[in-house]
Amino acid sequence: MAFDSIKVKNDIVEWIRGWFEENGPGCTAVVGISGGKDSSVVAALCAEALGKDRVFGVLMPNGEQHDIDMAQLLVNHLGIDSVTINIKDAYNAISSQVEEKLGEFTSLSAQNLSPRIRMTVLYAVSQSKNGRVANTCNLSEDWVGYSTRYGDSVGDFSPLSNLTVAEVKEIGRAAGLPDALVNKVPIDGLCGKTDEDNLGFTYEMLDKYIRTGVCDDPEKKERIDTLHRKNLFKLQLMPSFPYKAE
Amino acid sequence: MAFDSIKVKNDIVEWIRGWFEENGPGCTAVVGISGGKDSSVVAALCAEALGKDRVFGVLMPNGEQHDIDMAQLLVNHLGIDSVTINIKDAYNAISSQVEEKLGEFTSLSAQNLSPRIRMTVLYAVSQSKNGRVANTCNLSEDWVGYSTRYGDSVGDFSPLSNLTVAEVKEIGRAAGLPDALVNKVPIDGLCGKTDEDNLGFTYEMLDKYIRTGVCDDPEKKERIDTLHRKNLFKLQLMPSFPYKAE
Repeated sequence: MAFDSIKVKNDIVEWIRGWFEENGPGCTAVVGISGGKDSSVVAALCAEALGKDRVFGVLMPNGEQHDIDMAQLLVNHLGIDSVTINIKDAYNAISSQVEEKLGEFTSLSAQNLSPRIRMTVLYAVSQSKNGRVANTCNLSEDWVGYSTRYGDSVGDFSPLSNLTVAEVKEIGRAAGLPDALVNKVPIDGLCGKTDEDNLGFTYEMLDKYIRTGVCDDPEKKERIDTLHRKNLFKLQLMPSFPYKAE
Repeated sequence: MAFDSIKVKNDIVEWIRGWFEENGPGCTAVVGISGGKDSSVVAALCAEALGKDRVFGVLMPNGEQHDIDMAQLLVNHLGIDSVTINIKDAYNAISSQVEEKLGEFTSLSAQNLSPRIRMTVLYAVSQSKNGRVANTCNLSEDWVGYSTRYGDSVGDFSPLSNLTVAEVKEIGRAAGLPDALVNKVPIDGLCGKTDEDNLGFTYEMLDKYIRTGVCDDPEKKERIDTLHRKNLFKLQLMPSFPYKAE
């Protein structure tokens, strides 16, 4: 069955409009703009749903961001307002104390610190602008837990989290985004590795597996299944002691 | 029906032990210690479940905290390891940029910024110590949304979120905590108001309403119901566009 990118794009636009009518009439969509395809597509769909005056982009480099011009390209393309908040000082304020007082600051902490600070900044901006924070995750990343719990994995509403990377790209094209944004190779923004380097398989393989259940490489299939199983908790509510009063 | 605080305390201890066996064998419980009753009770129950060597307290004043000695009292009472990470620099790094670049930084942003930074710090500590982050919310606060989404409202596991304030206090007594900690009047840690000032009703009234459905003051009943309805979203997963592949 061919993916009807125009229909799905229009459906998402309608869904965003309806969600705001119910949960934030007149509010602004606040979108963290990384310069990658996901945030670009989310911003474009919000602009189509709400009008560009009700979309606000937040650029959040950690110090220097080598591809910040891609974020600026998106802002210019859509004609939305935006702000740049550098997270470096907040990052250093936390990481330096953890390192000093614990005697270590692991790469796991480092990888997840920026996304959590960015979430914190997005909400600080949103709550000063009567905004609603857009989540920009896609299904492929979520499937294997390639996101930070309570960081980039959260938000107030999520337009793309049931769509694969390939589908998001098609929606981006249907929304008229420049090729440079839609086809940008995703990197982790930390050590400069591509997502696919980090994951150990391609999004093409992952997307196909998600949609058809078929993966031709048994080793990579196993790796996908393991990541999926181990990371399911990230997208669920935390468990709580189930006391019931009598 | 009388509340059997010893039985419930023991049940929670068992639940914590089981949760760690399944989700983090050998891991440390990382608890943000405010000096209030909720974090004190959570830390005490974790110490009983895992042993005090597997509980790590994180004190996170924003600059000076006038009641930090209560947090230290808890740490000393339990004999757990702890660290103090001051969140002031991270707070200022974010708030000053938002204010400068947006031209405003509302009290709503201010109220919620500290809890989100504290969550971020807890995970930075936890991920450097092979830890699991304890949530310290109780049912009464959660009922009326008296928490910050993706801030103090989250964590990896939640021992108390189905227990009212009165029940948490009884559990604290059953766990042998000093009266000064169990009976401490909760304040918001921001402007020095008590929780009850901020909410406009007492926890006694709220707890009774939660457990019996009865509230003798129709105006306050209406206020509780409104807060409950308006804040339900905080404890739910964000909604996402429900695409299903054909």
